[in-house]
Amino acid sequence: MTSTKTVPDVLRRAHDLVGPVARDAVWRLSPEIRPLVEYHLGFVDSHGRPAEASSGGKGVRPALAILSAEAAGAGAATGVPGAVAVELVHNFSLLHDDVIDCDQERRHRPTVWALFGIGPAIIAGDALLALAQKVLLEAPAGGAAAACCLADATGSMISGQALDMAFESRPSVDVESCLAMEAGKTGALLGCASSIGAVLAGADEEAVAALREFGVQLGLAFQAVDDLLGIWGDPRATGKPAFGDLRQHKKTLPVAAALAAGDALAEELASLLSVELLDEAQVARAARLVDHCGGRAIATDEARGRLAAALGALDGAALEPSAREELREVAGFVVAREF
Amino acid sequence: MTSTKTVPDVLRRAHDLVGPVARDAVWRLSPEIRPLVEYHLGFVDSHGRPAEASSGGKGVRPALAILSAEAAGAGAATGVPGAVAVELVHNFSLLHDDVIDCDQERRHRPTVWALFGIGPAIIAGDALLALAQKVLLEAPAGGAAAACCLADATGSMISGQALDMAFESRPSVDVESCLAMEAGKTGALLGCASSIGAVLAGADEEAVAALREFGVQLGLAFQAVDDLLGIWGDPRATGKPAFGDLRQHKKTLPVAAALAAGDALAEELASLLSVELLDEAQVARAARLVDHCGGRAIATDEARGRLAAALGALDGAALEPSAREELREVAGFVVAREF
Repeated sequence: MTSTKTVPDVLRRAHDLVGPVARDAVWRLSPEIRPLVEYHLGFVDSHGRPAEASSGGKGVRPALAILSAEAAGAGAATGVPGAVAVELVHNFSLLHDDVIDCDQERRHRPTVWALFGIGPAIIAGDALLALAQKVLLEAPAGGAAAACCLADATGSMISGQALDMAFESRPSVDVESCLAMEAGKTGALLGCASSIGAVLAGADEEAVAALREFGVQLGLAFQAVDDLLGIWGDPRATGKPAFGDLRQHKKTLPVAAALAAGDALAEELASLLSVELLDEAQVARAARLVDHCGGRAIATDEARGRLAAALGALDGAALEPSAREELREVAGFVVAREF
Repeated sequence: MTSTKTVPDVLRRAHDLVGPVARDAVWRLSPEIRPLVEYHLGFVDSHGRPAEASSGGKGVRPALAILSAEAAGAGAATGVPGAVAVELVHNFSLLHDDVIDCDQERRHRPTVWALFGIGPAIIAGDALLALAQKVLLEAPAGGAAAACCLADATGSMISGQALDMAFESRPSVDVESCLAMEAGKTGALLGCASSIGAVLAGADEEAVAALREFGVQLGLAFQAVDDLLGIWGDPRATGKPAFGDLRQHKKTLPVAAALAAGDALAEELASLLSVELLDEAQVARAARLVDHCGGRAIATDEARGRLAAALGALDGAALEPSAREELREVAGFVVAREF
């Protein structure tokens, strides 16, 4: 797969540009909510003491937002409100997803609901969603169009999460539904991140659409890689148990594709996945079956194909060349590792 | 108290105008989320069958939004996106508050989380918040300013809810903090409802500010009445047990004001309220103590004073006279009963 393990320079650049503005935005939250958000974002530890190293994400979304402003010929500063807003919405979804999935840990620390309670975690997420809209609507120009773009992406992301929850009670999921869910849950916000800077810059609809398509496809590529890592990822690298997604009966792309094979091995897989608690031998057997039924190959092809589609979307559009090159770099980085 | 029990005509008028647009908006939600929202809004029963009579609220907020457009000299239609958006945000907050407060019933029916689960209720609320922004940003004019106004109000409402949650673990709450919480939790969204139509109509800042002030003060008047009913309301009318708020140790305005009296009776009240489970005699004694310590009188004065302030805010502004009169009617109705 075309990919790079080198961290693109733009991640550091975006971090330095966006970080202070994001902290100012968080500072506007009420004193009851702010500490929870500061903890969630890794600004402070569970006692409210400044954290030595931020345990936040890699900052891919803010970098994409900055680059999308530059790709439209504007300065990086134009993309900053978009970068902050997208990051706030991303963290709104993490706060609520952790409650919904009963996840006790994120980035090797207790989740907000596990530490502060379910009610406070819900409220903190809500506050970030309202704040994100506010940040955009206060942008010097293009704020209304950008807010509309963010509200759309947020709606799609929420629909994707609802579909994911609905899958849990279904015995099987077809590949098409699985991709639709992933397009909502991961693609929509990356599509927004990759175009919101251009929207703020007042770029024409063609450039915005190309950048959005780049982000949506990149989101699907990332998700396919994530699904592969969820089964075959090295536990030392992912921080999650081997075959983790299979233990949790998650109907991710490799599993959906394997079940669709419809042969005797797929039937064995289906009956294995109907067992409530899988032992070590069963989980390893399930992973081998997903591989034998073609699930691993299909997900790998999907990641490769979506990355190519993302890069292809950039090729056809009139974009500032150096920003386009940096977007390509970020894309390679995203599929090469977790973010 | 100056009030009327007659249902103002504008509530029916707003219902007929806003209802179909609200249903169209809800129809845009994904198939996994829509049924929960339709149930919550009383469009359907728990089996998804159309409900004979809507069990939704009285529709005060949509009526205020419509009137605020008319007060600014625009047609009622101008206020409709604002009415829909405010109602969506109100219901977002109900969905999440029911989860946070573990409330099993609302309007004599099981709450969404009790029926469908916590995760789906969180997601349904999230979807309404994103949809509300979308509805406003698509308004033919004034959408960005209205969206900003709604995001502000939503932020204040969430802060108020956070403060309310924080009060639960405090032994006492001063009157000022209590009013600040109520201004956020109830006042902000009513202030938004009462001015958003004027914002959509492009009214000048002075008229918008007067209408917002009317709504904020009306919200505080309503809340004071609600706090009185929470202790002394007739269970047959409120559908809640007598002295309900005292049983739940809620630090509402009458309680906060009574505790602030600082005399021997206030001390007796404080020690009663520190008892985890109050028996019937204790709860009746606590209610008498709140009364004796002046809490009932202070909350009654508060309701009266806030209603007067709300009406006063209308008097000073250049507003269309018949809309102003209808706003006065709604105000009288709101403090005369639950909505």
